[in-house]
Amino acid sequence: MDPTQKKNALRKLTYGLYVATSRDAESTAGGTINWLSQASFEPPLIMAGIKRDSRLHQAIENSKAFAVHVVGKSQKNLATSFFKGATEENGKLNGYDFAPGATGSPVLKDPPAWFECRVLDAIRRGDHTIFVAEVVEAGVRSEEEPLTIRDAGFTYAG
Amino acid sequence: MDPTQKKNALRKLTYGLYVATSRDAESTAGGTINWLSQASFEPPLIMAGIKRDSRLHQAIENSKAFAVHVVGKSQKNLATSFFKGATEENGKLNGYDFAPGATGSPVLKDPPAWFECRVLDAIRRGDHTIFVAEVVEAGVRSEEEPLTIRDAGFTYAG
Repeated sequence: MDPTQKKNALRKLTYGLYVATSRDAESTAGGTINWLSQASFEPPLIMAGIKRDSRLHQAIENSKAFAVHVVGKSQKNLATSFFKGATEENGKLNGYDFAPGATGSPVLKDPPAWFECRVLDAIRRGDHTIFVAEVVEAGVRSEEEPLTIRDAGFTYAG
Repeated sequence: MDPTQKKNALRKLTYGLYVATSRDAESTAGGTINWLSQASFEPPLIMAGIKRDSRLHQAIENSKAFAVHVVGKSQKNLATSFFKGATEENGKLNGYDFAPGATGSPVLKDPPAWFECRVLDAIRRGDHTIFVAEVVEAGVRSEEEPLTIRDAGFTYAG
C-alpha cells in the first residue's frame, strides 16, 4: 500500500466536529473529536475513536460514561478551545457554562445538540480506543446547522 | 430519555456517503453506508456500522474483507443505486465498472477514492454490526469533493 494514497483516501471521509466530556473521581475532562458515528438504531448505540493517551480517554475508562456535543456552524471557537483538553474554573469548563448530566458527565449549555452515553465495549487495537456506547440522554437546543471539520479547515484523518 | 430529542440530536451528526462492497464464495455484495469513521492512525483502522440483516453483512462476515468507496459530489446516482444492494451483470456491478482488489472485494472505478480493509473485530450488540478493520490498500482517482449525506438530502440516523 502506498502511504500517500492511503492518507489521501482516508482524508476524503466526511466528519463533523464534536466536544466530548467526561468526569471521574479526579476531575472533569474534555476534548474535541471527529471520529464518531451512530452504530445502531435499536438500542441507540454510537462508536467513538478516542486518543489513547488523552486525559479524556482516562476519564471515560474510569467513569464508563461521556457526553458528546455537536459543534454548531458559528462555534468554531468552541471546537478550538477543547483541542488541548478541558479545565474547570469558576464553575465553567474552558470558560463555557455546563451542568452535570444524568451520567455525571458535564453537559455544555451552548452547543445546538448533545447526548450522553454509557460505555458498553472498548476495543483497544490502535492508537485510539473505540468506545461503543449506548445513548441514554439527549437534547436539542437550537436549529443551528453543525460545523463540519472540512468547513472549519481542520484535518484529523489519514 | 425523550425519543424525539434523541432522534433529533443524533440527526445532527455529520456523515459522508460511501459504497461498500465485498465478495464471498456465493457472489459479490454491496450497499450504501454512512456509519463509517477512521479509528486509528497506526495501524490505519476504520470502524463501520453494517446492517445485520443485509447481504453485504453476510459477505463481509464470510470474506472478512470489504472495500469502501467515497461517493463524489456529482455521484448521487451511484449512492442511490446501491441502496438496495448490488447485482453483478455483464461484468459490472449495478452497471458500474469494477475490478477485484487485493482482498478480492470489488473495487469500483468511478469513485474519487477507495480503500480495502480486512476485518479484525466484529461487535454485535445492536441492529448493525460494528466491523473494525485494517486498511490494507487504497487509492485516489480524482480531486472531486465528497458528497455528504446532508447535501444529498438523505437521512440515516436517529
